[in-house]
Amino acid sequence: MGADGITADWIAADWGTSNLRVWAMAADGRVLAAAGSDEGMGKLSRHGFEPALLRLAGAWLGAGVTPVVACGMVGARQGWVEAAYRAVPCTPVDAAAMTVAPARDPRLSVRIAPGLSQDRPADVMRGEETQIAGVLAQEPGFDGVICLPGTHCKWAHVSAGEVVSFQTFMTGEMFDLLSRQSVLRHGLTGAEGDDPEAFDTAVSDALSRPEKIGARLFALRAEGLLHGLPPVTARARLSGLLIGMELAAARPYWLGQAVALVGSSRLCAAYARALAAQGVTARLMGDTACTLAGLTALYRPKEA
Amino acid sequence: MGADGITADWIAADWGTSNLRVWAMAADGRVLAAAGSDEGMGKLSRHGFEPALLRLAGAWLGAGVTPVVACGMVGARQGWVEAAYRAVPCTPVDAAAMTVAPARDPRLSVRIAPGLSQDRPADVMRGEETQIAGVLAQEPGFDGVICLPGTHCKWAHVSAGEVVSFQTFMTGEMFDLLSRQSVLRHGLTGAEGDDPEAFDTAVSDALSRPEKIGARLFALRAEGLLHGLPPVTARARLSGLLIGMELAAARPYWLGQAVALVGSSRLCAAYARALAAQGVTARLMGDTACTLAGLTALYRPKEA
Repeated sequence: MGADGITADWIAADWGTSNLRVWAMAADGRVLAAAGSDEGMGKLSRHGFEPALLRLAGAWLGAGVTPVVACGMVGARQGWVEAAYRAVPCTPVDAAAMTVAPARDPRLSVRIAPGLSQDRPADVMRGEETQIAGVLAQEPGFDGVICLPGTHCKWAHVSAGEVVSFQTFMTGEMFDLLSRQSVLRHGLTGAEGDDPEAFDTAVSDALSRPEKIGARLFALRAEGLLHGLPPVTARARLSGLLIGMELAAARPYWLGQAVALVGSSRLCAAYARALAAQGVTARLMGDTACTLAGLTALYRPKEA
Repeated sequence: MGADGITADWIAADWGTSNLRVWAMAADGRVLAAAGSDEGMGKLSRHGFEPALLRLAGAWLGAGVTPVVACGMVGARQGWVEAAYRAVPCTPVDAAAMTVAPARDPRLSVRIAPGLSQDRPADVMRGEETQIAGVLAQEPGFDGVICLPGTHCKWAHVSAGEVVSFQTFMTGEMFDLLSRQSVLRHGLTGAEGDDPEAFDTAVSDALSRPEKIGARLFALRAEGLLHGLPPVTARARLSGLLIGMELAAARPYWLGQAVALVGSSRLCAAYARALAAQGVTARLMGDTACTLAGLTALYRPKEA
C-alpha cells in the first residue's frame, strides 16, 4: 500500500509537451487518485522520465509490478522511448502495438501508445488518438467528425471504428504567439470577460475573406491606438479571426457532419459557438473523460 | 570639429523599435559618416533617448546648434516625445508638422517626424512615411503603389504627391514568431541557401487557397517528421505561404499597378519574385537611400 493509503491496480498517464497527468486506477475502472505536474516531455531528457513519473505516482505502487499506460509526446523521438506512428486508416489505438519504455524500478511496467500518421497530406498526432479511442469507447457506433481544439487543433474523420483521415491546424499556437509575443500583446493585456458579438463578427469575416487575416490582425493594434479598442474586444476578435480561418479550411470536415468536440471546456465552447453560426450543432465531450476512457481501452482491450 | 574630425551640418536619424541609425550630413547633402546601435525605442525609457543619440553622434557636434531630424518609433507614445499622427490622405511628410523633442544638451535641436494614420480601416505607420517621401524626392512624378516589406509590411497608394490609403500586414512578424518560436522551428534549423521552386509553389498555393494556411503550416512539421523535408525547403515554403497570403489580400494594391519595393534587398527580392509570378514587375529601391532622401526632404523642404 502506498504512503497515502492508495494502491493502484494500474496507472493511466497523459504525458504531453508541457504537462504530465497521472491517475491511480482501480481494477473496476474507478479513479482512486489523480496528480499532475509541469514535467512535460519538453522539460525532460531521456533519463528524466522515470523519476518524474515516480515523483507523482511512486506512492501508489504496491509490492508487485504496476502497469502504466501512457499516451502523448512521451512517445515522441525526444520522449522516453519512441513509439513509431501507426498509419491511417486504422483504429485510433491498438493495445498490441504499444511500445515498452525501459524502467529501472522493477515495480514499473510502462507501455506507451503510438501516435497516428498520415502520408499525404503529411500529418501526425500524439495523444489525440487516445482521446478519439475514448470517444469510441463511450459511443461504439460513433460515425462522423471529431474536432480536438488545442495548441494544434486536430480534425478527424471517424468511420466504422477507424480514423479515416485527419488534419492539423496551428490555430492555438498562433493565438498564443500573437497574443503574448507579437505587437498585438499591447492591446490585449488586462482583457477580462468576453465579447461574444465581436467573436461572432470576426468568425464571419474570416470565413468570408480568410486571406485578409494578416491585415485584420494589425487592425487590432491600429484600432487600439486610434479608437481605443477595448482589450476584451481585441482578444475576442483575435480568437474569432483564427478560429474562423480554421473553419474556412476545415469546411470539408464539418459541413453536414455530426461533430464531437473534445478539449478544454472554454475552447470547445468557442468552437461550438462558431460552428453553430454555420448551422452545425457540435457535441461537447469531456476532455479528461475521453483521455481516461482511451487509456482504459488500451489497458483493457474489449476483446480481452 | 568633432573628435573624429567630422562636424555634421545636420544629423539624420532613423530610430525604430530595435535599432538606431544616424548619419552625419554635409550642407551639400553628402553623407560624411554613419553609425548605428541596437538602442531602439523598445530598449529606452523617456530619458534614455538623448544619451543614446549622443553616444553615437556626439562626436559630430560642432560648437553651435546642430539640427537633428528623426523618424520612426522614436515618435511613438512610448518614445522620446509623441509626434501625433497625420491622417491620410496627405503628403507623406510635412516639415512644418514635426515635433520638437526636449534635449538638455544645448548643442542639440531635435525634431521628430509624425507617422501617418488612417481612420477606416484603422491603420498606422511610423518611419515608412519618410521612406515614401524619399521615393517621391527621387521621383517627384511617382504615381502608383509603394510596398515596404518588413516586420509589418505596408502597402501604400500614392497619387499626386499624397498617400491616398495604406494597409499593414503582420507577415514579417508572423514569419519571425513561427520560424523561431513555434513547433516549426525544429524543422527549420540549419537552413542555408534557398529553394526558389518551393517558394514559388507555396506562393501559388497560398494565393489560390489562402484559408489553408493554418493546415499548410503544420504540414511543414509533419513532412519533416515523416518525409525528411529539408530545412531549406521548409523555410522557403514558410516564406512563400506567408507572402502569398499577403498578396492574396493586397491584390487591389498591386493588380495592374506600378509597384515600387522599399526594404532590405533580400526581402524585397522575395516579394519581387512573388509579384513577378503574378505578372507584376516591381522596382526595387534602396532602403537606406529612401530613408535618407526622406529625412533630407524633411530637413530641407523643396519650397525653402
